[in-house]
Amino acid sequence: MALQPKVLQFFYKLWGKPHNLQEKNHTTLQPRFDAGGLLPAVVQDASTGQVLMLAYMNREALELTLQSGETHFWSRSRKELWHKGGTSGNTQQVVELALDCDGDALLVRVLPAGPACHTGAVSCFFNPLTPPKDPTS
Amino acid sequence: MALQPKVLQFFYKLWGKPHNLQEKNHTTLQPRFDAGGLLPAVVQDASTGQVLMLAYMNREALELTLQSGETHFWSRSRKELWHKGGTSGNTQQVVELALDCDGDALLVRVLPAGPACHTGAVSCFFNPLTPPKDPTS
Repeated sequence: MALQPKVLQFFYKLWGKPHNLQEKNHTTLQPRFDAGGLLPAVVQDASTGQVLMLAYMNREALELTLQSGETHFWSRSRKELWHKGGTSGNTQQVVELALDCDGDALLVRVLPAGPACHTGAVSCFFNPLTPPKDPTS
Repeated sequence: MALQPKVLQFFYKLWGKPHNLQEKNHTTLQPRFDAGGLLPAVVQDASTGQVLMLAYMNREALELTLQSGETHFWSRSRKELWHKGGTSGNTQQVVELALDCDGDALLVRVLPAGPACHTGAVSCFFNPLTPPKDPTS
């Protein structure tokens, strides 16, 4: 069954199809990429709840993520598309994606095939930051 | 007991004290604020594991967070410091902070006093994003 009326499909041809379904229980909110064309994506392990990394998607990386079911990002340092785990094998299978209330951040819940961090750590967030203590105490 | 040698305390006076301890088990990594002076902060409920929001801290917001034990951010829309819950009462008590592997993102684990989102939702990430289905299927 066609989910979209013909008129919408016409506009999709003109402007590109949005990445959300217009179905019940799914948002009509569009991702809001920043001035540099990027959307920050928080990656969380769907089974453990651990926050694994923060990375950035451009429109193409988001499309590839949606199409392939594995995370893709834009590497700001290498200035190239990056299929997470494409080299290391530590891919991330997407379970769920959600935009935040104003559409400018993405939560990606995944099942990771291995460590998220290039250091080999399960999560990139392994540097505890604590308030300075009184040096006289 | 003084945790820092006198020579370090001298440089702190010149350049400001870093926010990390040089103690064992704590990072020597410094936060890397972006060109606009901001650091993205992923806020996670420490008791449920739910990712609540993504917001941004400038140096002052991070200092206030560390000093007060409650989250402070820089509001990019209002262009002002923002004590989360200062008006609504929905403060976030900081349990743990961690920088990621390259210091340009922060994970803040909190105990929230109420919903994180201005809409009243527990988490800001409530807009499921799903891949477009084949309209002929």
